[in-house]
Amino acid sequence: MSPTGLTYDPSAHDAVELIRLKRDHGHLSQAQIEWMIAAYTDGYVGDEQMSALAMAILLNGMNRVEIGHWTAAMIASGERMDFSSLRGPDGARRLTADKHSTGGVGDKITLPLAPLVASYGVPVPQLSGRGLGHTGGTLDKLEAIPGWQADLSNSELLRQLDEVNAVICAAGPGLAPADKKLYALRDVTGTVEAIPLIASSIMSKKIAEGTDALVLDVKAGAGAFMKSRADARELARTMVALGTDAGVKTSALLTDMDSPLGLTAGNAIEVEESVEVLSGGGPADVVELTVALAREMLEAVGIRGVDPAENLRNGRAMDSWRAMISAQSGDPDAGLPQAKHSHTITAGVSGTMTRLDAMAVGLAAWRLGAGRARKQDSVQAGAGVRMHAKPGDAVAAGQPLFTLLTDDEHRIARAEEALQGSMDVDTEGGPHETPELVFDRITAADLTG
Amino acid sequence: MSPTGLTYDPSAHDAVELIRLKRDHGHLSQAQIEWMIAAYTDGYVGDEQMSALAMAILLNGMNRVEIGHWTAAMIASGERMDFSSLRGPDGARRLTADKHSTGGVGDKITLPLAPLVASYGVPVPQLSGRGLGHTGGTLDKLEAIPGWQADLSNSELLRQLDEVNAVICAAGPGLAPADKKLYALRDVTGTVEAIPLIASSIMSKKIAEGTDALVLDVKAGAGAFMKSRADARELARTMVALGTDAGVKTSALLTDMDSPLGLTAGNAIEVEESVEVLSGGGPADVVELTVALAREMLEAVGIRGVDPAENLRNGRAMDSWRAMISAQSGDPDAGLPQAKHSHTITAGVSGTMTRLDAMAVGLAAWRLGAGRARKQDSVQAGAGVRMHAKPGDAVAAGQPLFTLLTDDEHRIARAEEALQGSMDVDTEGGPHETPELVFDRITAADLTG
Repeated sequence: MSPTGLTYDPSAHDAVELIRLKRDHGHLSQAQIEWMIAAYTDGYVGDEQMSALAMAILLNGMNRVEIGHWTAAMIASGERMDFSSLRGPDGARRLTADKHSTGGVGDKITLPLAPLVASYGVPVPQLSGRGLGHTGGTLDKLEAIPGWQADLSNSELLRQLDEVNAVICAAGPGLAPADKKLYALRDVTGTVEAIPLIASSIMSKKIAEGTDALVLDVKAGAGAFMKSRADARELARTMVALGTDAGVKTSALLTDMDSPLGLTAGNAIEVEESVEVLSGGGPADVVELTVALAREMLEAVGIRGVDPAENLRNGRAMDSWRAMISAQSGDPDAGLPQAKHSHTITAGVSGTMTRLDAMAVGLAAWRLGAGRARKQDSVQAGAGVRMHAKPGDAVAAGQPLFTLLTDDEHRIARAEEALQGSMDVDTEGGPHETPELVFDRITAADLTG
Repeated sequence: MSPTGLTYDPSAHDAVELIRLKRDHGHLSQAQIEWMIAAYTDGYVGDEQMSALAMAILLNGMNRVEIGHWTAAMIASGERMDFSSLRGPDGARRLTADKHSTGGVGDKITLPLAPLVASYGVPVPQLSGRGLGHTGGTLDKLEAIPGWQADLSNSELLRQLDEVNAVICAAGPGLAPADKKLYALRDVTGTVEAIPLIASSIMSKKIAEGTDALVLDVKAGAGAFMKSRADARELARTMVALGTDAGVKTSALLTDMDSPLGLTAGNAIEVEESVEVLSGGGPADVVELTVALAREMLEAVGIRGVDPAENLRNGRAMDSWRAMISAQSGDPDAGLPQAKHSHTITAGVSGTMTRLDAMAVGLAAWRLGAGRARKQDSVQAGAGVRMHAKPGDAVAAGQPLFTLLTDDEHRIARAEEALQGSMDVDTEGGPHETPELVFDRITAADLTG
């Protein structure tokens, strides 16, 4: 956990020369990338120069070697964490496993997943963020639990990992500060959607965090950052390569995000649904993905031949959840905040739901107050959207489809607007297939040949 | 000559949306372009946003309609000049003709050209700039003449045009201020080499200047901004289209810039060579290009069937020169400044010179003090390079090839260094062809079909 920082010689390279090299389809060397990141973090290279380079990278790409150097330079801009002090009773190192999702609507998977994996004795250091835009943030959801604290010092984090295995907490500002500065720039310059920059942004933080194993949940579809499966696959491959090259055992599941995950999109209501899963119940898709990711994380640290669904049924995952919440001052038995107002939308026709647009549901939840428009905004714990049917389900005219929840009644109209045209119901009633939730898996072995 | 300026509604568009549109190979509308240029000039759109857009334009291009709107928006950001008050004795409007060169080494053509065309009764408002880098600036050259003043007010400019037809003066800061801001940004972000942006930068100033006819000298080769003939041709076509669409009668000559023009590269020595041309002498290539461009300008304002070489021989162009220099407080009879030191480089072998690298000669002249590295630097009037042979000429071992001129003796070594390997001499002595100076001509008629 030592801050390292980068030093550089201002006269060693010239920003314009490096921009022109990438612009003209060349490859940046390790020294050039290290210089650019260091000089940019320091302010010697200007925002206008880095944004021109980011656009050239978006349009002309970077190869695996360049992305690796880019990521390493961002890691070196800040502190690195180290979990090697975690030891078993025999003194052997305990390998940590972490998960990262590229974000989706109703994606509360971290909440049941971290305690589930921890219940098998694996330390799970889940450093998370808050939400911005239509996908919620894990910390925002947990903060709906009375008393729960997101911020831990590094020593508190280590102690909790050692004692209860599971930690979900806020990532400190010391990890990859170059990425923070670069992400803010990309956000205002139309350069967010560059796969090399997305991959290095995510992986610089995850590698700096010091986990031994990492499982990526890369989502594709209407409610995901990556709309196409091809883009999601490329992002997954890039991140698996980065993790592998940095010595982190990394794999990825590619998962569908055309429809929301589960039947809730919000904060307290997603905690509630997660607790259902930890009690052995909950929506089938949330259970399926939680179990699939848990199996992947367990295998990555050498635990094979277990069925993670078992610890959801037998209460061990719930014990880990209660210990994890309590360790961060949360009351696992407290009632969760309720929204002041609710509004129900009912079905106009009978038939089979064939489509439910995740982006529309995410936008509705956001407009109801579950998300924030600006970093400094707060969120409503009770706000969100409850869904009463998902694609593949039969619906009857007049039955509830959505319950909209908010503390501000005036928000309801715009949330309803967001949901207009968000779903299709087939009144013919033929059989309908819902897409596979986990549609591909990528490991280091898939990257060569 | 009224300043117009652009107004815009900050909330009408979103910079990130426009950047993404161009990034994704879309076309920007007139309203979007007007907003972007106005908001950028005003500071509402940041440098980091404009540089990302400039890189996207460089890599993805703009079509003829977009470039036209871009140019019009830059024109609208400042004042427009108006020469419609220039009238002949019969009260008819006198059409003005202007020339723009994309810049080359030894390119003093404006000096004999403006008075030559003016000697046929055509007003030539030649608004020029100072040099930066290896190509000299027209104003820097003329400032070698004792007393000569580059800065004229708009009314002085008009009066001089009316009285002596020819004016070469500094372009005021009021023309296309958006271009000035954008050019400075492109210079530090590796986005100078975008043909749509080069074309709109040049043409916005020339169109704002209000000339009726414009002849472009677009150079290609080792000493030119455009190294390839294909790029030069595309730039020429783009600029001819822009001028034509804006109602300016525009044509372009494509000319070779592998070797320097004439036998001098510097300031006072280029004035001296220009005066030789105006006296009916001078190097053949300078005479050829001056006459070709003069013919093009005369034809553009309806004067056909004259041989411009005649007014070089009969002294009329020289009369115009003397009137033009005197009108701007210069003394056409004064001796020109001489450099304090000179150094001669002689030929090592005998044979035929087959190559003389314009960039190397430009760099040597610059290092001797003829050019500037930063805008605020001053130049030496007497510094530069005299050439004693050009490609196609026979050279004898021991004969002078270059005379280096400077006020600072210590500059000579680095100038000599720049000239190492700058030329080839064929000792076999077979016949050698020199490339055609004017290799193509583009008019509005060439743009369609």
